[in-house]
Amino acid sequence: MMKYLSRRKFITSVAASVVPSVILRAQPKAGCVLSLFVGEQKPSVTSRAKLEETGVIDLSRSPFAKLKTLPIEAVVIQEGFWSKRRKTNLTASIPSMHDELIAHGRMDNFLRLAGKSSAPQRGPVYSDSDIYKWFEAVGFALQSGDRPELKTATDAMIHDIVAVQEPGGYMNTYYVGDKVAQRMLYDTQTTGHELYCVGHMIQGAIAYYRATGDTTLLDAGIRFVDQFLLPNYGPAKNQKGIIAGHPEIEMALVELYRTTGKREYLDLAGYILHGDDRITLRPQQITYMFCGIPFTSRTKLEGHAVRAMYACCGATDYYLETGDQNYWKTLNALWEDLTAHQLYVTGGVGAREAGEAFGDAYELPNARAYGESCAAIGNMMWNWRMLAASGEARFTDVIERALYNGINSGMSLDGKTYCYRNPLAFDPSGDWRDHEDPEGNIRNRWYDTTCCPPNLERTFASLPGYFYSTSSDGVYVHLYDNSEMTWRLQDGNRLKILQRTSYPWSGEINLTVSPETPSEFVVYVRIPGWSAKSVVEVNGTEVGGVKRGEYFAIRRFWSANDKIVLNLDMSTRLLKANPAVNEDRGRVAFQRGPIVFCMEHLDQSGSEHAMTLVGYTVELNATTATRFNAELLEGVMVLSHPGAVSRSAADKGLYYSATETEKPEEKAVTLKLIPYYAWANRGPAAMQVWIPYSRA
Amino acid sequence: MMKYLSRRKFITSVAASVVPSVILRAQPKAGCVLSLFVGEQKPSVTSRAKLEETGVIDLSRSPFAKLKTLPIEAVVIQEGFWSKRRKTNLTASIPSMHDELIAHGRMDNFLRLAGKSSAPQRGPVYSDSDIYKWFEAVGFALQSGDRPELKTATDAMIHDIVAVQEPGGYMNTYYVGDKVAQRMLYDTQTTGHELYCVGHMIQGAIAYYRATGDTTLLDAGIRFVDQFLLPNYGPAKNQKGIIAGHPEIEMALVELYRTTGKREYLDLAGYILHGDDRITLRPQQITYMFCGIPFTSRTKLEGHAVRAMYACCGATDYYLETGDQNYWKTLNALWEDLTAHQLYVTGGVGAREAGEAFGDAYELPNARAYGESCAAIGNMMWNWRMLAASGEARFTDVIERALYNGINSGMSLDGKTYCYRNPLAFDPSGDWRDHEDPEGNIRNRWYDTTCCPPNLERTFASLPGYFYSTSSDGVYVHLYDNSEMTWRLQDGNRLKILQRTSYPWSGEINLTVSPETPSEFVVYVRIPGWSAKSVVEVNGTEVGGVKRGEYFAIRRFWSANDKIVLNLDMSTRLLKANPAVNEDRGRVAFQRGPIVFCMEHLDQSGSEHAMTLVGYTVELNATTATRFNAELLEGVMVLSHPGAVSRSAADKGLYYSATETEKPEEKAVTLKLIPYYAWANRGPAAMQVWIPYSRA
Repeated sequence: MMKYLSRRKFITSVAASVVPSVILRAQPKAGCVLSLFVGEQKPSVTSRAKLEETGVIDLSRSPFAKLKTLPIEAVVIQEGFWSKRRKTNLTASIPSMHDELIAHGRMDNFLRLAGKSSAPQRGPVYSDSDIYKWFEAVGFALQSGDRPELKTATDAMIHDIVAVQEPGGYMNTYYVGDKVAQRMLYDTQTTGHELYCVGHMIQGAIAYYRATGDTTLLDAGIRFVDQFLLPNYGPAKNQKGIIAGHPEIEMALVELYRTTGKREYLDLAGYILHGDDRITLRPQQITYMFCGIPFTSRTKLEGHAVRAMYACCGATDYYLETGDQNYWKTLNALWEDLTAHQLYVTGGVGAREAGEAFGDAYELPNARAYGESCAAIGNMMWNWRMLAASGEARFTDVIERALYNGINSGMSLDGKTYCYRNPLAFDPSGDWRDHEDPEGNIRNRWYDTTCCPPNLERTFASLPGYFYSTSSDGVYVHLYDNSEMTWRLQDGNRLKILQRTSYPWSGEINLTVSPETPSEFVVYVRIPGWSAKSVVEVNGTEVGGVKRGEYFAIRRFWSANDKIVLNLDMSTRLLKANPAVNEDRGRVAFQRGPIVFCMEHLDQSGSEHAMTLVGYTVELNATTATRFNAELLEGVMVLSHPGAVSRSAADKGLYYSATETEKPEEKAVTLKLIPYYAWANRGPAAMQVWIPYSRA
Repeated sequence: MMKYLSRRKFITSVAASVVPSVILRAQPKAGCVLSLFVGEQKPSVTSRAKLEETGVIDLSRSPFAKLKTLPIEAVVIQEGFWSKRRKTNLTASIPSMHDELIAHGRMDNFLRLAGKSSAPQRGPVYSDSDIYKWFEAVGFALQSGDRPELKTATDAMIHDIVAVQEPGGYMNTYYVGDKVAQRMLYDTQTTGHELYCVGHMIQGAIAYYRATGDTTLLDAGIRFVDQFLLPNYGPAKNQKGIIAGHPEIEMALVELYRTTGKREYLDLAGYILHGDDRITLRPQQITYMFCGIPFTSRTKLEGHAVRAMYACCGATDYYLETGDQNYWKTLNALWEDLTAHQLYVTGGVGAREAGEAFGDAYELPNARAYGESCAAIGNMMWNWRMLAASGEARFTDVIERALYNGINSGMSLDGKTYCYRNPLAFDPSGDWRDHEDPEGNIRNRWYDTTCCPPNLERTFASLPGYFYSTSSDGVYVHLYDNSEMTWRLQDGNRLKILQRTSYPWSGEINLTVSPETPSEFVVYVRIPGWSAKSVVEVNGTEVGGVKRGEYFAIRRFWSANDKIVLNLDMSTRLLKANPAVNEDRGRVAFQRGPIVFCMEHLDQSGSEHAMTLVGYTVELNATTATRFNAELLEGVMVLSHPGAVSRSAADKGLYYSATETEKPEEKAVTLKLIPYYAWANRGPAAMQVWIPYSRA
C-alpha cells in the first residue's frame, strides 16, 4: 500500500509540473464544429481522479518510448465507421456480457467464498480473468464518458470480489477448498492460470482506477503482488520459482510499475521473462507456453498464439522501460517471423486448432484457420508497443490490418455474439471445430472459455487511445476516422486535431491542426503500406516525397485551423500470397483500403439453393466495381467482380487427365464481396476470403 | 453345433460332386516353367480338411454372385511385385504382430479370466478383435502353404481363448467383473464393440477352419451366436434389439451362413442391416455408426469410414445371398457417391480425423487426410463384393487403386511398422495428428488401437484370392502379377492360367491359358480404366474392340498353352482433381499404371538441408522420364519430371499485388517421384502427392 500511495503522489507532482490537468476537460474552442460531435459523449470526468495517464498503456515516463500515448479521453471518436461499433460495445456488448458472466456463475465463484452464494464453482480454471477483463473494458469505457449505472454495478462487483482476498494477499476462486494445496505448484503454474488471472486483475484495476480514481481493486492487486508474490516467489534462494504458464502477468507488472513507480514490479517482470533456470520444463511446454527460457533466446513465433503474443507484449513493455537491446533484437526477429511467415491477411495469427498455436512458416490454412480473436488482439497490442518503441509505420500497418479485419470480425454487428476463431473460409456443414453450433453458426453469445468477448470489448473501448501519439518533435496520426483530439505537444503547447473523413470507405482524410500557440513542430501522417499512390496537401498545396508504409513528416510552423488533406489510394487490390502458402496458391484475396473482403454464399447468384462457394472463380484481369450499400450490414462497401461458376464438373469424375482439353462447363457470373469483418451476421454462411482465379 | 456339422457334410458332398479336391495339390503340367516358381511355397495342405471353399469369401453357392471366388490356394503368386510384400507379411509382420499382441497384454486379457495370468485388463474395449483379426491373417497365410510353427502357436492361443467362453456362449474379455451388468445394454452396443469382436472372431475362425480344418474357434463363434445371440436378441417381442455400433457382425454372419448353411445367420444379418425400429438413436449416432436405420434408406457415405465400409460389405454380402434389389440400388448409389465425391486418388477414404469420418462431397484434404488403412481395406473388401455381384470392371479399378496405393502404404517395406492414417501430404514437423511420434515418423510398430496392422496382414495374406473369379461362361482375370492359377471352370473343366509380367512397372502381361479339356469359354481380361490405349493379342493376333475400364471378353475355343498378350498403356498420367476439390486446385498428381506417385523431400535437389517440399512446382506440359531403380526402396520405378523450386519468395513478403509483374525467383529442377506406397520408409519425410503446377 505504501508504494501505491507514494506513486499517487508522484503522479500528482508530475502532472502539476507539466500541464494543468484541467486541460482534459477543456471546452472546444470557438469555431470548432461542436455541433457535429454527435458520435460520442464528451467526457466530464467529474467523479474520477485527476490523472492524465489514461492511455491504452501509460508511456508518459517510459525512457525508451519514442512515442508517448495519449489519454483515452483526449480523443473523441465521432460519427463514422467506429462510432457504431463503439456505441454497440457500450450499450449491447458490455451490458450483455455482464449478464452472461453473472448467469454463468462467474460472480458466484467469488460470492460463494464470501458466504453469499451456495452455487458450486463454475467455469474453467481461468474464469476469474473473464470478470477482470470485463472490468478493463468498463474502465476504458468510463474513460470515454460518464456511465453512472455502469460504475455503480462495477463498484458493487469489485466490492464483492476484493472481499475474498486472503490475509496473505492470495486471490483466486478456483484454488480453494481441497485445491489449496495445489496453489502455485510448478505443475499448477504451467496450466493453472493463477498469475494470468492476477495479470488481468491488475490490468482491469488500472483501467478502472484511471477512469474513476477508485483504488479498491488496484489495492487488492497490489496486495497480491506485495504480500503474496514478491516475498515468496522470485530468483532468490529462499524463494520459489515462477513459470508464466500463460504469459500476461509480465505486461501487467510493467503497467503496475508505470502506475506506482515501484521498481520491484519491473524487475519481477524481467525475471519472469527470463525464466527461472532452476525449473526444468519439457521442450513442448517451452514451445506451447512461450515461457521458461530467456525471452531473448527466442528466434521464432511458436506455440499457443495468445501466449506468444502476450509474452511479446510484456517483453516490449520491458524494453520500453529498460532499453535492453537484446530484447529489441529478439522482438524484431519475432516480428519479421510474424510478417514473413505467420500473419493472415486479416491480421489474425495462430493457424492451428491443436494447441491454438502458430503453425510452421507459411502454414496458413483457411477453413481450418484458428485465428482466435484474442490472438489478433494480442497481435495489435504487441504492435502498438513496437510502434511506441520505434515510431515506424510497419507496425501500424499490422495494427490496422488486425483491427479492421481479424479483430473486428470477432464481434457480431449487434454486439451480442462473438467468434472465438476467425477462419478465412467456412462451410457451415463442416465439422472441423468445436466452436460452431449444430446449425453452423460460428458466432456464439457465450463460450465456457469466454476470453475473447471481454477482450474484444476492452479493445473497442480503448480504441481512441490508439489514434495518436506524441513524440519529442510533434504528433503522430496513426488511425483515420471522424474524431477530435484535444491534447498537448510534449513542450506543453496545447493542440487540437480534427479529422473529417469517410474512411475506410473513402481515402480522403481532412485534418484540421490547431495548436493553442502557433509554433514549429512535425505532424506525422501515416501513409498505409497498401496505398500505392498517395497525395498529401497542406493548406491546399501538394507536398512531395510521400512514401507508402511510412509516416510522412510535415514539419512547418503550424497555426490554428491549418489543413492537411490526405488522399490515399483506394483501388481494390487483388492480393496473391507467397507461393509457399499452399492453401492460397491459385487464389486471390480482395483488399480495398484497410478492409479485406470475402464472399458469402448469400450474395452470389447461383447460390440460392446451396450453402456452398465451391466452383466460383475470379477473372484475374478484370476490374472491380465498388458500391456503398447503406442498407446492408449497417452500411458496407460491396465489391463486384467478374468471375465464373462451375458448380458441377461431376461428369468428368473426381480425377481426370490434365492433358484432356475439355474444360468443366462454366457460367459467367458477377462475384459479390462484402467486408470480412461483417461476415456471419446473416445466419450460417459459406464464406471464403481466398478465391480461386481462372487461368489466363 | 448340429448346424455346423451338417454344413461340414454339405461341403464334403458338394466338393465331391464337382471336382476331386486333389486338384488343389495337382502338380504343374510338364512344360510349365516350374523352376521359376521361387516366389512362394506350393501348399501341401497335409494337415487340414479337404475343403474347396477357401476364398476371400465363399461365393460358391451364392445365388446372386455373378462371379465365384477361387480358393486362396488355387493361385500361387510368384516372384514379382507382390511376392516380396507377401513374404515380408509372413516372415516379419505376422510374427512381430504376434509378439506385439502378447507384449501388450492382449492374450493376458484372456489368460486372466482362465486364472492363468494376474495381469490387469489392457487395451481399449475392442482389443479382443485384434487377436481375432490376426487369426484371420494366419488362416489366410496357412491357406497358401504350410507353416507348422505358426499353426502350433495359433492352436495354443485358440485353446486358451475358447477356455474363457461362458456357458451361455458369451465371450468378451472387457465386459467381465463389475462390467458384466453393462453387457449388450443399448449404450454399450453403440460403443462397446461386443458384436464387432464376435464378428472378427467368426471371420478369423472361418479363415482358420478353411486352412486347417480345426473347428475349435469356429465352434466357439457358433456357440456365441446360437446360444447367446439368437435366443435373446432379434426382432421378436421377447427379444432385445441389436445395434451394430461398429458394423462387422453383418458380413461375419453372412459368411457363417455360407459356411454352415444355417439360414438364421443370414436373417440375423438382415435384421441388423435393417435396424431395429424399437430403438431410437440420435441422428449423430445414425450417421457416425452407419447403422440404426434401414441400410436401404442410405443415400450417401457419411460418418465413421470403417464403419460405413464394413456396413457396405455386409449389405453386399446380404444382397449376394438374397438378391434384394433395394440393397443393390442403395449400394450402387453409395458407390457413385464414393467415386464421385469421396475417394482419394490413393484409394483411401475418410477425409476427417474428427470421427475418423467421411467429409462433405469433395472434401479431400491432403495433409490432414485421415485415410485410415482399415478404411482403404474396407473399401477394397466392399468393391470385391460389388465386383462379384456384377462382374463390372469399375469395381476392380477401385480395388486396384486402393490395393497398390492407400493399402500398400499402410505397412512399411520391412513389414514391422504401420501407418494408421495415410495422408497425401506430410510435414514431419506438423502437429495435426496424434499418430506421429515426436520425431515425425508416421509409422509405428504398435498402436493401442491396433486395428490396422492385422487388417493389413489379413489382406496381404488373402491376396491370391483376389486375382481370379469364375463365371458361368468362363474365367475373369482381375489382377496382374507373376502367378499360377490352378482351378476349374464352373463346368468342371480344369484350367491353369500362368501369368508372366513385370506389372505394375511394365504394361505387358503374358497369359498362358491351359484348360485340361480343350473347350469354348470366355477369358475376361481386365482393361484398367487408366489404360488409354490397350492392345490384346491372342496367339499372336491382335483382337479388336478393347475398351478401357471394362473386362475384355475373349470367347473362343481354348486349348492348352494358348497365349494372351496384354499391352496396357503405361504412360505417366498427370491427374487433375475435380475443381470442387479445393485442396487440389492448381495441382497435379502423377499416376503410372496403377501406381500413384509422390515426392519425398529426400529425393529432391535443394532439399538437402530442409525437410520441406514448399515451393516446388511441376511444369505441366513437359514429359516424364521413368527409370526403374532396383536399389531403391526394394526396387521402384522413379519418375523424373521438369519443374521448379522457388523456396524463398520472402523478399516480396507474405502478400503482394496480383498485378505486379515480377515473379518470385525460381530455379529449374528435376522433380523426383517415388511410388506413394513406398513413402516414409527412410525416416521422417516431407511428402506430397498433389503438387502445384506452374502456370503456362
